[in-house]
Amino acid sequence: MTTRHDCLARDAADPLARLKDQFSLPPGVIYLDGNSLGAMPRSTAARVQQVITQEWGQDLIKSWNTAGWMDLPSRIGDKIGRLIGARPGEVIVADSTSLNLFKVLSAALRIVQADSPTRRVIVSERSNFPTDLYIAESLAEQHGATLTLVDSPAEIAAHLNDQLAVLMLTEVNYRTGAKHDMRAVTAAAHAAGALTVWDLAHSAGAVPVDLHGAEADFAIGCGYKYLNGGPGAPAFVWAHPRHADRFWQPLSGWLGHAAPFEFSTRYQPAAGIKRYICGTPAILSTAALECGVDTLLAAEPLGGMAALREKSLALTELFAQLAEDRCGTLGVTVVSPRDAEARGSQVCLALKDPLTQAGYAVIQALIERGVIGDFRAGDPTRLDQVPHILRFGFTPLYVGFADVWDAVEHLYQVLSTAQWREARFNQKAAVT
Amino acid sequence: MTTRHDCLARDAADPLARLKDQFSLPPGVIYLDGNSLGAMPRSTAARVQQVITQEWGQDLIKSWNTAGWMDLPSRIGDKIGRLIGARPGEVIVADSTSLNLFKVLSAALRIVQADSPTRRVIVSERSNFPTDLYIAESLAEQHGATLTLVDSPAEIAAHLNDQLAVLMLTEVNYRTGAKHDMRAVTAAAHAAGALTVWDLAHSAGAVPVDLHGAEADFAIGCGYKYLNGGPGAPAFVWAHPRHADRFWQPLSGWLGHAAPFEFSTRYQPAAGIKRYICGTPAILSTAALECGVDTLLAAEPLGGMAALREKSLALTELFAQLAEDRCGTLGVTVVSPRDAEARGSQVCLALKDPLTQAGYAVIQALIERGVIGDFRAGDPTRLDQVPHILRFGFTPLYVGFADVWDAVEHLYQVLSTAQWREARFNQKAAVT
Repeated sequence: MTTRHDCLARDAADPLARLKDQFSLPPGVIYLDGNSLGAMPRSTAARVQQVITQEWGQDLIKSWNTAGWMDLPSRIGDKIGRLIGARPGEVIVADSTSLNLFKVLSAALRIVQADSPTRRVIVSERSNFPTDLYIAESLAEQHGATLTLVDSPAEIAAHLNDQLAVLMLTEVNYRTGAKHDMRAVTAAAHAAGALTVWDLAHSAGAVPVDLHGAEADFAIGCGYKYLNGGPGAPAFVWAHPRHADRFWQPLSGWLGHAAPFEFSTRYQPAAGIKRYICGTPAILSTAALECGVDTLLAAEPLGGMAALREKSLALTELFAQLAEDRCGTLGVTVVSPRDAEARGSQVCLALKDPLTQAGYAVIQALIERGVIGDFRAGDPTRLDQVPHILRFGFTPLYVGFADVWDAVEHLYQVLSTAQWREARFNQKAAVT
Repeated sequence: MTTRHDCLARDAADPLARLKDQFSLPPGVIYLDGNSLGAMPRSTAARVQQVITQEWGQDLIKSWNTAGWMDLPSRIGDKIGRLIGARPGEVIVADSTSLNLFKVLSAALRIVQADSPTRRVIVSERSNFPTDLYIAESLAEQHGATLTLVDSPAEIAAHLNDQLAVLMLTEVNYRTGAKHDMRAVTAAAHAAGALTVWDLAHSAGAVPVDLHGAEADFAIGCGYKYLNGGPGAPAFVWAHPRHADRFWQPLSGWLGHAAPFEFSTRYQPAAGIKRYICGTPAILSTAALECGVDTLLAAEPLGGMAALREKSLALTELFAQLAEDRCGTLGVTVVSPRDAEARGSQVCLALKDPLTQAGYAVIQALIERGVIGDFRAGDPTRLDQVPHILRFGFTPLYVGFADVWDAVEHLYQVLSTAQWREARFNQKAAVT
């Protein structure tokens, strides 16, 4: 079995290890919740201070131009584009993931229905993150469409027919960490005459994404998870250039206008992705997002997302292996795919009888020991299929191999001493 | 004529004058653009630092609960409510003005059409801020409705008929500063069987607003103008309780769900205004907004919005009077209403022949002298009706009477020496 010494040696030999210096984390904390809220880059505080005291406080209104506020959505969008296989000018930062999904799903439905009015089905997974389902439910109602939810990826194939308008999937599942094959799924959807919308909330900055390589249609993603943009950081949105200037923007705010400062009374969308800017961007939060994205770009000289992915897989594999080896007899099972290709950058554990209901307490006991993961309740009516899970995200920028070893050791101690029975039942702290 | 000495005496006797200490402004600057981007409160930098380094950096994910991030939209909403005649629990902070307009205009259309399907007209003013018109244009298209624009408030009456669904107005015009009588206009719309949507972008924090007193239906407003929330600060939204639980939220994001942490697959809107939260709020920008709102609440012991309004009217009247007295013969006319009741907290000037085209250069020359206002181009095809304007906002929290006197003196010197001819043509710096 891998020893702690082995892990320390791997950390010492890891050229990516020094990227952790970019972050400030509390002493003694092993932070395995970067899939929920990324850690704080050291650069963020000074950058936001600069925006507040100099750009806003001293330079006031002119900073929209002189400090480049007006260009932030595109500038940061281009940086994110480098992480997800998009080209310059194709990505912008705006609003929230939910709102960006509303924009692109509206567009996808219109494009498909313009050519094929009878295509009225949106297909997604029941296990998709709820906000995606809620937005799709709203748009289905408005467009006279139907939202069909499948219970497993294998069921998708049965819906690839001439009724399908849009296949809307999150590439990496927020609960299980299971990862779709974006290229293959997109090709299958296209073969059926449908478009795809990909939510990259748990992909961007976590796994290499190649939107052009996959021939994807639309994508959105989150700024505050693996992009380390800070709580509630703005989200991003991408559209394949083949849809550019064809796609619709129902949220037709003035900064998505082709010439906002002409103050025209009629909406004329900006060319390309810029139409997906809506109102005035929240500059403080947007500036902080750039610092987060920069922590990922710092890996480019070291191999970029491919190198980060290699480390991520090594970390998650080590965690899964150690969790099974050390804690398997205590009732722990690995829920996430063991096949590397089918896994994002997180590992989820479930607990077997008699610990089935102990998950929340176990997470609390781990947090008290400084190991921060989170708990996601299962479906009480079918815990065999959707169990309670302990969710651990592994951000290769700031998690090392010894951290993984220590986290499993803590888990072992919590379970073997039944320490979780004494864990304080803190209020839930959970924003996915 | 009022002398500078008179103005200094008025400042010395003004109990609101000390509220300026809440702000940090560059030395030598007379800031008359708070109607575009409010000035920076001194408290903002430290508060945002606390959010970044302590709440995010040290306390990480648990701050959603322990630092009250989850409650920020309601907590700040309640504070804004005190400025606009709304009750606790009726206002939330979310997204942008454009997006909040999309939410409430969608709701208003649905409510009206549920009772009166033949009501299919939205009426607004051609001079309304464009983003409002763009959002209405989009929703009119989606709802099979018509957007009708009037050229003056007097024309509204002709459209108060059984076709009218929603009367959508900005209370204080962003160009001219002309102010509607919200109570009278709302009563007339209601008498015609229609609902009202009020944009308070240039009202909240600028003039007393009494949403309940006016029996208004829906309202939205901006966080970064008179509320001093910082560049692109989140906006706010209000709905009258009589519409609560009836109104629709097309932008059905997860944090507007009745129980977001149950991760249900079906959307069930939260009770009341909280359904208008959509995705995860941008916490840094939201926290900064609270500091801005607090600068207005600091006036409550001194008479609150009524006292601020009294000073605002005195400032704008003084500016208009001095501008006419000192600069009238140089070609300056006051475009904003001289009747106090019909005016917001800004004064706009136009220039007569031969200075008709000099407005932009005059503003640049003033900015070079430290007097910051802005320029709004007129309609080139009918400059007699929609002239180029010089726009000056007067925020009683940080503008004094001597500032007004000095600003007019600078304007006089710019015009009388034709200094504007030498003004650098800086890039436009303009976010309304």
